[in-house]
Amino acid sequence: MTTTVIGVDLGGTKILSRLVDPITGAASGRAKTATPSTGIDGVIEAIAGTVDTLDPDGEVAAVGVGVPGPVRDGVVLRCPNIAGWDRPVELRARLAERLGRAAVVANDVNAGAAAEHRLGAGRGVDDLLAVFVGTGVGGGLVLDGALRDGPRGLAGEFGHLTVVPDGRPCGCGGRGHLEAYAGKAGIVAEARRRHAESPNALIEMVQDGSMKSRHLAKAMEQGDETTLELLDEATTALAVGIGSIATVVDLPLVVLGGGIVDKLGEPWVAQIADRLDLGGFGADVVDLAIAHRLDDAGSVGAAVLAADALV
Amino acid sequence: MTTTVIGVDLGGTKILSRLVDPITGAASGRAKTATPSTGIDGVIEAIAGTVDTLDPDGEVAAVGVGVPGPVRDGVVLRCPNIAGWDRPVELRARLAERLGRAAVVANDVNAGAAAEHRLGAGRGVDDLLAVFVGTGVGGGLVLDGALRDGPRGLAGEFGHLTVVPDGRPCGCGGRGHLEAYAGKAGIVAEARRRHAESPNALIEMVQDGSMKSRHLAKAMEQGDETTLELLDEATTALAVGIGSIATVVDLPLVVLGGGIVDKLGEPWVAQIADRLDLGGFGADVVDLAIAHRLDDAGSVGAAVLAADALV
Repeated sequence: MTTTVIGVDLGGTKILSRLVDPITGAASGRAKTATPSTGIDGVIEAIAGTVDTLDPDGEVAAVGVGVPGPVRDGVVLRCPNIAGWDRPVELRARLAERLGRAAVVANDVNAGAAAEHRLGAGRGVDDLLAVFVGTGVGGGLVLDGALRDGPRGLAGEFGHLTVVPDGRPCGCGGRGHLEAYAGKAGIVAEARRRHAESPNALIEMVQDGSMKSRHLAKAMEQGDETTLELLDEATTALAVGIGSIATVVDLPLVVLGGGIVDKLGEPWVAQIADRLDLGGFGADVVDLAIAHRLDDAGSVGAAVLAADALV
Repeated sequence: MTTTVIGVDLGGTKILSRLVDPITGAASGRAKTATPSTGIDGVIEAIAGTVDTLDPDGEVAAVGVGVPGPVRDGVVLRCPNIAGWDRPVELRARLAERLGRAAVVANDVNAGAAAEHRLGAGRGVDDLLAVFVGTGVGGGLVLDGALRDGPRGLAGEFGHLTVVPDGRPCGCGGRGHLEAYAGKAGIVAEARRRHAESPNALIEMVQDGSMKSRHLAKAMEQGDETTLELLDEATTALAVGIGSIATVVDLPLVVLGGGIVDKLGEPWVAQIADRLDLGGFGADVVDLAIAHRLDDAGSVGAAVLAADALV
């Protein structure tokens, strides 16, 4: 037996498993396979295959899996990005049986939040929100030292907080949600709408392709007016959302990560901090920190949670 | 010994203590005294006096106290409404020593939330926000069956969630906070501002006095345009705030209470529910319920928490 555990990042297109030291977060080994489209049994077998590759002698005592859907008590409630996954699955129990060892299952973004809490920018802080700003905006809540799932596995869904009543359409069908202002998909959709009236550098760069964080940074450096406006709205949206959640839930720290944060870095986070409006609670009440760029945060986070199951 | 406990509601002007059956919430006895302005020692003696009055033979095993300030682990961090209370006080420890029995201390609004969770509209639901809409807007969070204090005792401060970026000034010094739109103080302040330009029925009724919920209901019934606009903004503010918190924290239930909710009742709560914008999570994800008008919810809630300390 060893203290090393296995962390698995189950994605819509690929499964990536790593051997992880849960104390340092150091990841080694790497077993990767395409996510089968043959349904749940196939996914479980594929995960087991990567575990066997990394640990042929069965020495690792626990496996943690991050999944792209809501999870409650080891049950994956939905998994819209994985073909054939059309009903809730007791994935923790089924993996534990198939693998013959302890298994832990968490939402992948929540697993990333756990990694930041235990090994990254949130180390030593027991109450925090980790926010990941990428194509969409996701997050995870750590309260009193423990990751919160919530009764429907939805806790941490920071992207769907309303920041502008009746505002921009969100991909989820709602309006004015934070993700529509701060996520890359929301930003580029709005840039396209404005481009039709008055061309902007962002869409001229991206054309019909998908926008990367570097496009955003470049158009910003060029001083493109539309891009600056959109970033300004994203900054305000994040400040409003962070201020609200940090106040109501009482969080002294918010960790920010994801592609846009990595690209725009500290100056952008400082702007968000400047716009926090916490009133009488004092502007020093919420610290913002940039997430550590942990190697494979999803699988490392799942591994950290798996290690907890062994204690 | 008896299973009855004592609940104390410590307010800025009076201290009210009741004998409470923590299983049914039934309150009996009633010992009341003015809140001393001589500092913390005086307040502790005054509380002890009410306890002696209710329980002269010292048969009650636990006393719970709700206080108008943030509490963490039995320490009252601030208490701005009580004269001489100018520093954090280990009230739980000091009361336990003075009273010679178990003591529990909680924020008064959080105690009210605990009462709703255990005995009122939140019975049987382990994850909820209770919101009290009165002069201001307060709240309490129950997560996984337990009241959340938060590391700074601020959890549940629902009134200071931002609903309109850069919006109306809030009493706390911030802008656009929910309390500025949905609390009586915020509504009447805005009505006075508008009255200066174009007279409205609400201020004509209230004059220079303080607005009661019945004034609001009456001006609304008269179809006063300003009042209807202000109520419309309050409705949207509550819907936005509830939707945001319920999504990010994952709460299936929000309990609404306080003077305005009691006065406007079910039709208003239905309007708030209609405006919830939860997008893809489905509009049925958050139930709204009206708080039970528990007799002295503050002292009953504190008593419920005190009873827990005996288990």
